[in-house]
Amino acid sequence: MPLKRQSLPSSEELIQGIQKGDTATLARAITLVESTHPDHVDRAQEVIEGCLQSRPETIRIGITGVPGVGKSTFIETFGNTLIRGGHKIAVLAVDPTSTVSKGSILGDKTRMPTLATATDAFIRPSPSGQSLGGVARKTRESVILCEAAGFDVILIETVGVGQSETAVHGMVDFFLLLKLAGAGDELQGIKRGIIEMADAIVINKAEGANIEQANRAQTEFQNAMHLYPPKPGGWLPQVLTCSAIENTGITDIWSMIQEYMNQAVKEGTRDRKRAEQNRFWLIQHLEDILKDQFYSSETVKNELDKWIKDVQNYTISPFKAAEILIQRYREELK
Amino acid sequence: MPLKRQSLPSSEELIQGIQKGDTATLARAITLVESTHPDHVDRAQEVIEGCLQSRPETIRIGITGVPGVGKSTFIETFGNTLIRGGHKIAVLAVDPTSTVSKGSILGDKTRMPTLATATDAFIRPSPSGQSLGGVARKTRESVILCEAAGFDVILIETVGVGQSETAVHGMVDFFLLLKLAGAGDELQGIKRGIIEMADAIVINKAEGANIEQANRAQTEFQNAMHLYPPKPGGWLPQVLTCSAIENTGITDIWSMIQEYMNQAVKEGTRDRKRAEQNRFWLIQHLEDILKDQFYSSETVKNELDKWIKDVQNYTISPFKAAEILIQRYREELK
Repeated sequence: MPLKRQSLPSSEELIQGIQKGDTATLARAITLVESTHPDHVDRAQEVIEGCLQSRPETIRIGITGVPGVGKSTFIETFGNTLIRGGHKIAVLAVDPTSTVSKGSILGDKTRMPTLATATDAFIRPSPSGQSLGGVARKTRESVILCEAAGFDVILIETVGVGQSETAVHGMVDFFLLLKLAGAGDELQGIKRGIIEMADAIVINKAEGANIEQANRAQTEFQNAMHLYPPKPGGWLPQVLTCSAIENTGITDIWSMIQEYMNQAVKEGTRDRKRAEQNRFWLIQHLEDILKDQFYSSETVKNELDKWIKDVQNYTISPFKAAEILIQRYREELK
Repeated sequence: MPLKRQSLPSSEELIQGIQKGDTATLARAITLVESTHPDHVDRAQEVIEGCLQSRPETIRIGITGVPGVGKSTFIETFGNTLIRGGHKIAVLAVDPTSTVSKGSILGDKTRMPTLATATDAFIRPSPSGQSLGGVARKTRESVILCEAAGFDVILIETVGVGQSETAVHGMVDFFLLLKLAGAGDELQGIKRGIIEMADAIVINKAEGANIEQANRAQTEFQNAMHLYPPKPGGWLPQVLTCSAIENTGITDIWSMIQEYMNQAVKEGTRDRKRAEQNRFWLIQHLEDILKDQFYSSETVKNELDKWIKDVQNYTISPFKAAEILIQRYREELK
């Protein structure tokens, strides 16, 4: 509990430190945001409110892809390219499984050795937590703090195997799917619907003997993109190739994202998307709280499994069962 | 209010009538299910409970496609083919817009003239209602009644332009997307994600000068299907062509569905899917009720818009705003 042993700076001190761009203070404030200790929750909210900006000129990029696709190396190479271009990079992650499953731990500094030591980069592993809602919330709030600290490109990493992409998609301006070329099997690990969320697909490891296959996959996917309805603003998702290890194709990816953002800023779609995302997070969090309170009640904890068995055995209709259970929950609340 | 003027049969009488296969009684019971009158709600539940079967040997098929794709003609031709094969067909619909937007009214008997007069077919338009949850629920309950009345193939129609496909997908064994061949534009009206839900894509109006184009679209889509992860049970979604007007390709579609179902019954995936769907409807309905009660409360009706504006203007974080509003809702409940 380092936060309790050390005397914690006041909210005002934290806000000022963040706004000066002090990364140690930023890291400390994020630890506060991630804490579930009741003393910390209110103070974290004060810091977040103090860091809220009405229209930060930043670029938020979501990056997803199955384990093995080379996300860390990509972020390392991509991030260093941006730093050389004068940008300050924050790397965050959303991985609800990080506490339970090894191998999927994201945002680990050892995976990005040069970025980890760069002064213009800030790397933070995924907050831990049992529920995706909680993990996503903490990351969404950390974005606000990183932007207030002067990081102008925020990379949010996630794994392409769950609901976490939807959460990340709901907090970024641009959503990028990393893939490998290969047989049809290549997509086995990628959840349905992720391709449709992507603003760009990047085929990584286009190097050596893989180049030809990567180019074929690019053509194939670019054709498939035409089969989908266009994105808001008329953007047609692009398919590019790169080699993160050999640092080829990386600047093209950054140019594409800049082109997208320039257009989005000019046409107002960036601000409309962000406003819509804020509305989304309000509604989402309202409904998360409602559900959390319901599922953590004594009545529901004791009875839900029984009702599930009953509806699966067709001894009662799902709708009737739901109404009885809600009625019993209401009685508990009284 | 015909239900109130006529003396309504008892639940027992309705159940017996349905189980005898009397379609007039079936229609009456569905009207009861669709009624929101408090006197009717409980009785409807009794009838549904009385009609629940533990493992009905039926096939539930969802059919979606944008207006103009020829859903009515397809269902007419497909249904008549099945009737000739000895099946009894019920046609239901889920269309939450049916009360407000003309042109999308589904299940209208005049659109299926020969099916409407066939003794082995039962056609019912979409229940009306403001919320998708309500409309979907009524249709899901009507399926139970139709199956109890001896209809062994249930076709549930919906439009490919909203959330209603997810609802229908959650109540059927097989989900079929009807399409037209044509330019990339052809998909404009089809919502993202629907293609990934489909167990089969059928390209309709493959007739006359269209045949070649339909065949090309078939190849194109069949190739694209390989890019998706496989369905549970390993089913690779099929792409077929047909002409509902000329009655070509229809028996192939039925053979494909039978093949799918035979495999699903043998391997137990049908029963597992249905059990999972029942669990899904229980959870779904629980959460629908929680949300309905929340959004229809005085506090939320009066304040939500203000909070949305505030988070969109970055004057408060979405999470903080949600917590305040929930707190105020709780106080109202006390």
